[in-house]
Amino acid sequence: MSQRFDELKQYLDRAMALQAALQLFEWDDATVAPKGAGKLTSNVIRILSGEYFQAVNNEEVKSLVKACQGDESLTQIQAAQVRELAEELEKLDSIPKEEYQDFAHLTSEAVRVWEEAKEKNDFQLFAPTLKQVIEYQKKFASYRAKDGQKKYDVMLNDYEPGFNMELLDRFFDTIKKEIVPLLKAVADSKVMVRNDFLTGEFSDDQQERIGRFLAEYVGFDFSKGVMAVSAHPFTTNLHNKDVRITTHYHHNLDSSLFSIIHETGHALYEFGIRDDLTQTLVGQGASMGMHESQSRFFENIIGRNRSFWIPIYEKLQEVFPQELSEIGLDMFVNGVNKAEPGFIRTEADELTYSLHILIRYELEKELIEGNLSVEDLPQMWADKYEEYLGIRPENVREGVLQDIHWSQGSFGYFPSYALGSAFGAQLYYHMKKVMDFDGLLAEGKLEVIRDYLRENIHQYGKLKDSRTMLKEITGEDFCPEYYVKYLKEKYGKLYQLDS
Amino acid sequence: MSQRFDELKQYLDRAMALQAALQLFEWDDATVAPKGAGKLTSNVIRILSGEYFQAVNNEEVKSLVKACQGDESLTQIQAAQVRELAEELEKLDSIPKEEYQDFAHLTSEAVRVWEEAKEKNDFQLFAPTLKQVIEYQKKFASYRAKDGQKKYDVMLNDYEPGFNMELLDRFFDTIKKEIVPLLKAVADSKVMVRNDFLTGEFSDDQQERIGRFLAEYVGFDFSKGVMAVSAHPFTTNLHNKDVRITTHYHHNLDSSLFSIIHETGHALYEFGIRDDLTQTLVGQGASMGMHESQSRFFENIIGRNRSFWIPIYEKLQEVFPQELSEIGLDMFVNGVNKAEPGFIRTEADELTYSLHILIRYELEKELIEGNLSVEDLPQMWADKYEEYLGIRPENVREGVLQDIHWSQGSFGYFPSYALGSAFGAQLYYHMKKVMDFDGLLAEGKLEVIRDYLRENIHQYGKLKDSRTMLKEITGEDFCPEYYVKYLKEKYGKLYQLDS
Repeated sequence: MSQRFDELKQYLDRAMALQAALQLFEWDDATVAPKGAGKLTSNVIRILSGEYFQAVNNEEVKSLVKACQGDESLTQIQAAQVRELAEELEKLDSIPKEEYQDFAHLTSEAVRVWEEAKEKNDFQLFAPTLKQVIEYQKKFASYRAKDGQKKYDVMLNDYEPGFNMELLDRFFDTIKKEIVPLLKAVADSKVMVRNDFLTGEFSDDQQERIGRFLAEYVGFDFSKGVMAVSAHPFTTNLHNKDVRITTHYHHNLDSSLFSIIHETGHALYEFGIRDDLTQTLVGQGASMGMHESQSRFFENIIGRNRSFWIPIYEKLQEVFPQELSEIGLDMFVNGVNKAEPGFIRTEADELTYSLHILIRYELEKELIEGNLSVEDLPQMWADKYEEYLGIRPENVREGVLQDIHWSQGSFGYFPSYALGSAFGAQLYYHMKKVMDFDGLLAEGKLEVIRDYLRENIHQYGKLKDSRTMLKEITGEDFCPEYYVKYLKEKYGKLYQLDS
Repeated sequence: MSQRFDELKQYLDRAMALQAALQLFEWDDATVAPKGAGKLTSNVIRILSGEYFQAVNNEEVKSLVKACQGDESLTQIQAAQVRELAEELEKLDSIPKEEYQDFAHLTSEAVRVWEEAKEKNDFQLFAPTLKQVIEYQKKFASYRAKDGQKKYDVMLNDYEPGFNMELLDRFFDTIKKEIVPLLKAVADSKVMVRNDFLTGEFSDDQQERIGRFLAEYVGFDFSKGVMAVSAHPFTTNLHNKDVRITTHYHHNLDSSLFSIIHETGHALYEFGIRDDLTQTLVGQGASMGMHESQSRFFENIIGRNRSFWIPIYEKLQEVFPQELSEIGLDMFVNGVNKAEPGFIRTEADELTYSLHILIRYELEKELIEGNLSVEDLPQMWADKYEEYLGIRPENVREGVLQDIHWSQGSFGYFPSYALGSAFGAQLYYHMKKVMDFDGLLAEGKLEVIRDYLRENIHQYGKLKDSRTMLKEITGEDFCPEYYVKYLKEKYGKLYQLDS
């Protein structure tokens, strides 16, 4: 037993409790809080955030961390917590406190400015603020860069430890080379995929009924979880015994169905984290990309797989007899896989999704490392959509202003979405070797797949990074070719392309 | 501007934010949190409670409070905050920290023990723990007593500043002398009041529909408030722009109807607190009794008044055509006012309610100041129910174990419920002089009544105590005779008693 770690643990526990409170406020705000509460509740949140900052970032903690770093009596889990905390402290310490606070203030303003600009479809409203956000992030990255590290690499590493531009350039080059022509071939295909039956007057009650069924079927444990409604679906958790997902109910049925499966994928990760890790700094997903790998794995590789629907498609028809009794299983599965270029990332199908991310990656690199100016951003955005997806956004609301991320200062975050899909594909081809993947789906034995993922990924939290886990599980380093292979096989079959 | 107060304010703000977080956890636990979350979430709550304690109770705060107490540059609101904080500090300071923590631990255990004992209908399970709780509370009260103050007076003053046994003895003597015979007369009356139509298969959806209508009709502002479902109805708030009520839906319709009006009464108090007081130590109701006066005023004096239902009874019939279309307004109003002795306080009608409180007041006095031992409590409880209500509980679950309060260490709390009813009656007779009370109800002009209460009570928060407000509004000190008069008039009329 390390006495220093015990002292440090008091700070870690405070930080954990404050973090849980902040999570709860975020959940509450998105799901139930009254509209009028915002301003006064934000006072509360500002103070609690300050308390959190204070709990992890003070002289006492710094000296305890230093002492613990040399302490060989620490358990593996304790050492991992010290490592995470040390990284966080190093990050905060390299940035002058005043600049850090100014930036926090700027981004909270920036989100509001972005909302207004998006609402008014006016990029010029947002441009000056975005310029400032980028300047701060570049400055912070240069403070933090080690041994000639590039600024954008510093940012990427925050979301996906172990990844950098070199790896991602190779990844996105592969995508560009393979997916752009594949999408062209799909567009030229004579196969007409119907999905009109997915749009209609699906009642919220019915959508909720099938949504709860699906969540539970996929593995969501309602004794340790909650499902609610919010404007944008998300997953949050207080610990591994309290995991919460949200969805929304629209006129297109697939939106709620697949967002629920997606969020359940995130939720399974959180449920699966070991009891001795939850409520610690390492009791979270290994990385953004690994988290997205689980959600997108369940949403797409499982949820849009014909075998998945074999045992339960009748149930879906039962809930929507009017809308689906005439639609057969194959027509339904083909419909939810239809590929169509669109402007909005969050509504994209599996094939075009990676191109939305490719565009953002290229633009971020140009903004941070290259010479792209904020003024030229909307033009460049539109050019790239035209080049890769063959469509040109006519307004900034459906173009460069669609995502919240940049207003929050999140540069380097987008690649994780595509990485997640690619991790998932690599896992998929490996799992097909060690189990009868499609057979299990067809028999409704999802627990075998779930247990495998829990055993190999979920339980570890942040004890291992995503690249290490991939290597240990599949025997290979990260390999984007599996993702391309997956998309080619899937869409080649659906659109009857010659391969 | 006082620099010392500004320094103190940082601690006050932290305490406020932590308090808001704790409120939110409480709300969340009662309304949505998954069952399995309890144990881990209680870690979070324990830590946040400790942080709260630390924020208000430390040497820095003590010296700042001392400095502020002599500072004449403070505004009235600042001075009131300092006064509240000083009281809290004095209370905490007079109790050795170790004993305080032991007691906190004991009561958290005690609640669980009480739950089990109630479940198993076994008082002996709870008796040893209750004994300990009482010993602690007596000890704490003796630490805190000033100038020969009695221990139970110390406890009473915590919930109802300005009140003590002398005042309450007079109050409860009046109740005993007047209400016990009144209840006998009601029991002997030949008038049969029907309320069978209030029991049935009322669907949750319909109950919720009329519940939301009623809350809004009474004045609940859904842009700054939320209504949800929980096992026991309650009201909570984060500040005056976020006020939340709950209800439950049972087979007896009046339960949800009147619990919603009751909680809306509490909510109107919280909505009504001035913007410059909310999120401060004085931004709460003046006292427990004053808070209950508002909830019970709306529930009973307004909600069980025939005039209240004149504009809206048709709406109720519309929602429950099967159950109520044959029931006329008078039969409905009489039904919801039926007086019948029962064992359970929370289900009691307006007439018998005060006797439930009388019994608890007499028992608490005997436990704290007299010689009643915990062993003899169930017997004494049953004897008093027989004496005052004419019925004898056959088991402790419906007897001495029905309420949670004593397990939480809350002695001196019960009288506030009866005081609230009595405050309400005193206000009622005054308001009848300054406005056409029944006429306003009959015309659906509740805003006039609401504005009057906000103007005279709600807005002040804790700036004035309940006794002072009563005096300023009605021109009289607290006068329990109005309460007796109210019950005599109401039940005399309903049961056609000679007066």
